[in-house]
Formats: sequence, C-alpha cells, structure tokens
Amino acid sequence: MIEPKLLKGFRDFLPEAEITKKSLEEKIEAVFRLMGFVPIDTPALEYAQVLFGKGGGETDKQGYRFEDSGGRAVALRFDLTVPFARFAALHLSELPMPFKRYHIAKVWRGENTQRGRYREFTQCDFDIIGTESVASDFEVLLTMHKALSAIAGGGVTIRVNHRGLFNCFLARIGAREQSVEVLRAVDKRAKIGEAETAKLLAALLDEKRAAGVLEYAHAAGGSSSWEETLDKITALSGGDCEESRRLRCLHSFMRETGIDSSFVLDPSIARGLDYYTGVVFESFLDALPGIGSVCSGGRYDDLAGLYCKQRLSGVGASVGLDRLIAALEAAGSLDKSGSYAKAAVACVKAEDAGRYQALAEKLRAAGTACEVFLEPAKLTAQYQTAEKKGISFVIIIEENGALTLRELAKRENRTGLTVSEVVATLDNRED
Amino acid sequence: MIEPKLLKGFRDFLPEAEITKKSLEEKIEAVFRLMGFVPIDTPALEYAQVLFGKGGGETDKQGYRFEDSGGRAVALRFDLTVPFARFAALHLSELPMPFKRYHIAKVWRGENTQRGRYREFTQCDFDIIGTESVASDFEVLLTMHKALSAIAGGGVTIRVNHRGLFNCFLARIGAREQSVEVLRAVDKRAKIGEAETAKLLAALLDEKRAAGVLEYAHAAGGSSSWEETLDKITALSGGDCEESRRLRCLHSFMRETGIDSSFVLDPSIARGLDYYTGVVFESFLDALPGIGSVCSGGRYDDLAGLYCKQRLSGVGASVGLDRLIAALEAAGSLDKSGSYAKAAVACVKAEDAGRYQALAEKLRAAGTACEVFLEPAKLTAQYQTAEKKGISFVIIIEENGALTLRELAKRENRTGLTVSEVVATLDNRED
Repeated sequence: MIEPKLLKGFRDFLPEAEITKKSLEEKIEAVFRLMGFVPIDTPALEYAQVLFGKGGGETDKQGYRFEDSGGRAVALRFDLTVPFARFAALHLSELPMPFKRYHIAKVWRGENTQRGRYREFTQCDFDIIGTESVASDFEVLLTMHKALSAIAGGGVTIRVNHRGLFNCFLARIGAREQSVEVLRAVDKRAKIGEAETAKLLAALLDEKRAAGVLEYAHAAGGSSSWEETLDKITALSGGDCEESRRLRCLHSFMRETGIDSSFVLDPSIARGLDYYTGVVFESFLDALPGIGSVCSGGRYDDLAGLYCKQRLSGVGASVGLDRLIAALEAAGSLDKSGSYAKAAVACVKAEDAGRYQALAEKLRAAGTACEVFLEPAKLTAQYQTAEKKGISFVIIIEENGALTLRELAKRENRTGLTVSEVVATLDNRED
Repeated sequence: MIEPKLLKGFRDFLPEAEITKKSLEEKIEAVFRLMGFVPIDTPALEYAQVLFGKGGGETDKQGYRFEDSGGRAVALRFDLTVPFARFAALHLSELPMPFKRYHIAKVWRGENTQRGRYREFTQCDFDIIGTESVASDFEVLLTMHKALSAIAGGGVTIRVNHRGLFNCFLARIGAREQSVEVLRAVDKRAKIGEAETAKLLAALLDEKRAAGVLEYAHAAGGSSSWEETLDKITALSGGDCEESRRLRCLHSFMRETGIDSSFVLDPSIARGLDYYTGVVFESFLDALPGIGSVCSGGRYDDLAGLYCKQRLSGVGASVGLDRLIAALEAAGSLDKSGSYAKAAVACVKAEDAGRYQALAEKLRAAGTACEVFLEPAKLTAQYQTAEKKGISFVIIIEENGALTLRELAKRENRTGLTVSEVVATLDNRED
C-alpha cells in the first residue's frame, strides 16, 4: 500500500474550495472579456534558459528545474510575465497591436512554505502591450476597478503613482543614480516603519535629501485630493512635465467614467520591481485593508528585451488570487457551497431511475442544475444529504405521479405539483 | 539575446485557439454542473511513488520525473485518474458518497511526438464513485450524451458493452483465464483488421473458440436493435444473469429519457484497460466517424486499491479534448474568433479616451463585451483592425455627440443614434 500523501506546499482543492476558486476566476474573467481582453496559454514547462535567462536572481533559486529524458535543461514556469515576454517575442508578427491578453494559470515556486505560502498557486495577469497611450494605462485601471468590485462586492481603493515623475524629482535633488535603491527603501516602508526607512534613505543619500524623499512620498497626506497631491509633487519635481500631464489626464478619464472616488494619487507607492518605468498601482479592498494589495502592476517600457530587439512597452497588472480567496474566506464574505445543483430528485425505487432523470432533464432544460439520487434511501436521509451539499430543494415523484417539492431550509413540502409548476417555482427563485 | 523557442511537443495557444479551447471546456463544464457534478483540483506535481506506484508500465517511461531541491522523487501527473484515486483515498471521510466529480486539467507525458501527439495536453474526466447502481452507469452515459451533443451540434453515437457479460461468455467456452488477452485482441480489431484479430485469438484459444469470440463480438451485426443484440449475447453467455439485466435496465432508462436512438449495444467494444469490470463505452460523432472515440470510459470496481483498503467502485469517462478540437477544426465546424468583443468604440482624439470608455461601459453594463481603440487612427484602419479581430460593430462618437454604428460585415453605417439606441441594437442582435 502506498501512502496517499501530498508534497509539502501543495494542496488538493475539495469541491467547496474549487467551486469558490472557479467562481472568483469566472467573475474576473467575465470582466476581462467585457473589456475586450483575450486569453492566451503557454506551456507549464519551458527551456530553463528561456525562463531564467542568465539566472542568479531570487526566483532562480526557487525554480523547479530539471533535466528531461532528452537531456534538456527545463523548468516549470514561476510566473506568467516571463512566458508572456517569450510568447510576445515568438509571435510578434501574428499579434494585432495593441495586444490585450489575460492569462489565468498555475505557477510553481519551491519557496519556503513556513510563511503560509504554497509552492503551486494561481496567477491571474492582464496586460496591454504595443501602446504608450494614457488610454491604455487607464483601461488597466478601469479593468482592475471592475474586477475587484465584482469580486469583493464592497469598495475598492486603487493607489496610483508615477515612477517617471518620482525620477524627475530624484534628478532634481541629485539622486537619480540611486533611484532603484531609493525606490526599494520607500517600498519597504509599510514593513519596516517610517524611522527605519528614513535611516535607509539617509545612508543612501544624506539626511536632507532623505527628508526630501519622505516629503515627496508623503505628499498625499491624510486626505489630499488627486489634484492637490499632483500639484505638490509636480512642484517638487520641478514643474509641469509629460509625467504630471499623464497623471492629470488619467484623473480626467476617471471622472468621465465616474470611478474617480476609488482612486488615490499616492507618491509612496513604489513597487519593488525594477522593470516598471511609468505609472504603478496597488489596490486594496475597503473591507479588508489589512491584507495589503490584492492587485498591483504598472507600466514598463521593455517587456521582451531578453528575446527580441523590438521594444515592447505596455502596462499590466496581476491579481493575487490565492491570497484574495484566503482573505475573503477569513472575513466570511464568500458564499460557500459544495454543489452547483439547486435541486435533487429523490430516489424511491432503483428501477425508476429513468423517470427521475427524465424529470431532472426538464429542470436542466430550463437552466436549473439538478442532480438525481442514485440509490434508494429514506427520504429524511436524502434531505440531509442534499442539505449538506448545499442543495435547496428535493423533488419527490409521488405514487400518483404528482410531484412534491421540499424546500429544505424551511422544512416545507408543497404537494400535488405538476412538472411545469416545479420548473416555474425553481426558475423564479433567486439563487 | 535568448531564442524564444518552445520545447518539442509543447505549444502556445494564441487567442483564437485559446478562445476555442475555452469555449469547448465551458460547454462541457456547463453540462457537468447541470448534472450535479462538482469540480476538484489536485497538484500538477506529486511524489513519483504516488503517481507511478511500483512502476514499470508504459506511462512510467513517459513520465516527467525528477528530484526536487529537497531531494524528493517527484513527477508531473500523466493523467487525472491516478491523482483522483490518491485524492479519494486521502479525503475518503470528507467526501459525500456517492461522489460525483469532474476535473479538467493539464497532464504531461514525454511521448513520442512524431505521431502528432503533444507532451502537454488537457484531460477532462468525470466519475461517480461509491455506488454500483445502474442509475450511476446511466447518469454517466446521459452526461456524455449531453456534453457531446452540446459540443458537436450534430448526432452522437455511444457504443456500450458489458465486460462482465463478456466474461460470462468466456467462462462458458472455457476461456475465462485468457480474458485479458482476448479483450486486448478484440480491442485491436479496428487497427489490425478482422483476419489478424482472428489469428491472434486462435493463437490464444483455438480456432473454434476464436470463431466463437468473433461471433459474440459481431452479435450487433449491421443494424440489430439493442434488444436483439442483448438477446443474442445473453444466449451466448448462458442465459439471463445480473449483467444482462443491467444492460436491459440501462436501455429502459434510455427510452424513458428519450435518448435511446443514440445508443448501440456493441459487444465488440472492449476498452484495452485492465481495470474496467462492468459496462464500457465509446462514443463517436456522426459527422466525424473517422476520428474514432471522442469520449470513453466504463465501470471499475477498485479505484484506489493502491492507497487504501476500502474498495471504491465507480463509473467514469474521459473526453479527449485536444483530439476533439483538432477534428472539429479539420471539419470546419468550429466558430473561430480572435475576440469576445462584439463592438469597439473608435478613437478619434487621444484626449477623449474617458468619453470612449464611458460609452463602452454602458454597453458592458448591458452585457455586451466592448473594447475601445486606444490610439487615434483613420476610421478605415480601425474598421479593418476590428474586423480582423472578429468584432462586428464599430461605434463612432460624432462631433455633435450623436453616435454612428458601423456594421462591419455589411459595410453599413447608421448615424444619429443615441446611446440607448445603440445598446438596444447590439442587445437584440444574435451572436
């Protein structure tokens, strides 16, 4: 006998968890489709060199790398950005530009599992490449707003910044060369606190300039409006420029679509990744601010430089689906169910299975998911099983052929119904 | 620069191909849900011993096996049946029995790619475990019928046989011990031809009994009805028994649900796999008989014997999704599109992007997927781009604020429309 155990950091999804995951994915995907994004898929396994390049980074150590039976150095993908860059380079001539893709798929990282991280998890990325337009920055923000609103039900706050404008500011105070380190320090603020960040910055620059950086990062203050913050950081950066005009333009688009109240211009948003060059953003659920950003991203100016000469600029974001689910679950704001079925037909006699399915088929034809009990048992036992699965109704065919509809939550039976009465009742009832 | 190449046997899905794949998966999944099946998911990576057991088989050689950084012998799953067996053993106490699951996911096999096979492909399995009822056999057949009808649009023929009844027959002619080899020979019939099969059988048994086996396998003749065939093979097997009664009962269920004309009792269906013990079935699209079975399966009596003591009997089937797509594609019976969007809002001036999105949002709120051009260009160029993507309409905001609706296929413009007129027009139009 072999022990049916799982690898550390990997997990099964039982029906309830899988239904929840699928439901969130489907809501997000519905928004992507409404917005005109199209799906792509790439292999789970690629050449290690394609995924890791020259290697040496953090992800390199965490990769699942091995030699296949043909002696090739291969690896499981650790994110969806690198495969997208490779995909864009390979299919450049076939993709209509601007190209708007989404990709929801598993990725694998041999990370330390002690922090509650999994080694297999789902990423959900969307990007617009081949355009530098403000319209594309805005479309990604609008898509985030719609997707997160669809998932969370409640309010969403999206915090936006512009890397380029921050760099203008750094250039002005003579700290352009330290910009990556300064960004990293600002990015750590939430984790290490204000005082530690100030120390880090002072070590990189000097106390005066470090204070200047913190003044810039804090320009949003407690409740300053987009325009007020923008005026402040524009002035700190040396006055009106292309980057500040982009932020002003973004805000006018938000107002025109009526979503401006969900957005905050926050000069402290840095996003640790080196490759962002333009707007960057993080988003938070108003009901669950403690879980941190649930969808982040930004504009980059060279997606696929590792694989082709053409500069592909773009803007994109990624939803942290597993963390989002864990948080919504902890907050009790997920509808949980172990079944898609709304009704079940009771089994009284095994030999009547054909009749039961024929009845269920009438409900299914009307769009109601309906299962059929497959073995005879006491009605009370069938009620219990159905209720455990999250099914709301049980239908019993009486000896005279009439139907009884049992509403499980109310413990109520309606008797003497026709098929069309049952169909109509279930059809009209809200899920 | 790194060459953006793929591993042999692996492929990218560009939007058109991915939309097609997703569309088929969604149709199949919708049927599973209507029938009350629930989804599960398992890790792509498991302990090699869990997936391969004692090893040595065909799949063993084809497996992607390696050592992870913790020194564990791991492997990528090569099918969804073995992980389901492991899953069922591990979660036995948590699963409501009978348990009806579906699982649509990628699997990996380092197979010879010369036969046009891929090393990464999607499997789509569904099973009912924990019941031996005829009702569960029937439910799997009904589910196949519904899923394939939803996908193929046209007629479906499902060929059914009973391994147990065939074994009764073999016992009667004194060939019970050779049953696995006999089944394999009968299963090869379509590939190697009648004469070769007869030779194989004669080598296993003797000429007389080999002829008997072929007589049994041919009992369906050209167009014999389910009842006629059943009478013949029942007689050949020594008269009425539990197995023949099950086949009779299945047929009565088919008649009661009005799907009997799609089913053929075919004693030549063997299914090569050792672990089937009851009914077995294969299914064929009437429009594409040449591609062979697109969904097959059967009843087994010990799913998880490798991992637990409890005998889990069940019945299930698997849809060969990639082959099905390739066949439907070759037959030209797939609607292809590079976009989900039905309409696109033209971009005349970059600074009006907010207005364009605000208009698109009204269509989206009515459920119409709508994209927005992100950069200004000549209208004719925008029409061409939209048409290439498979979008049907372009909407232009005129200088006076009125809307023009361009129907691309007809090269027709309707001018002077209000937003609600455009929404209503697109809403009413069939996809």
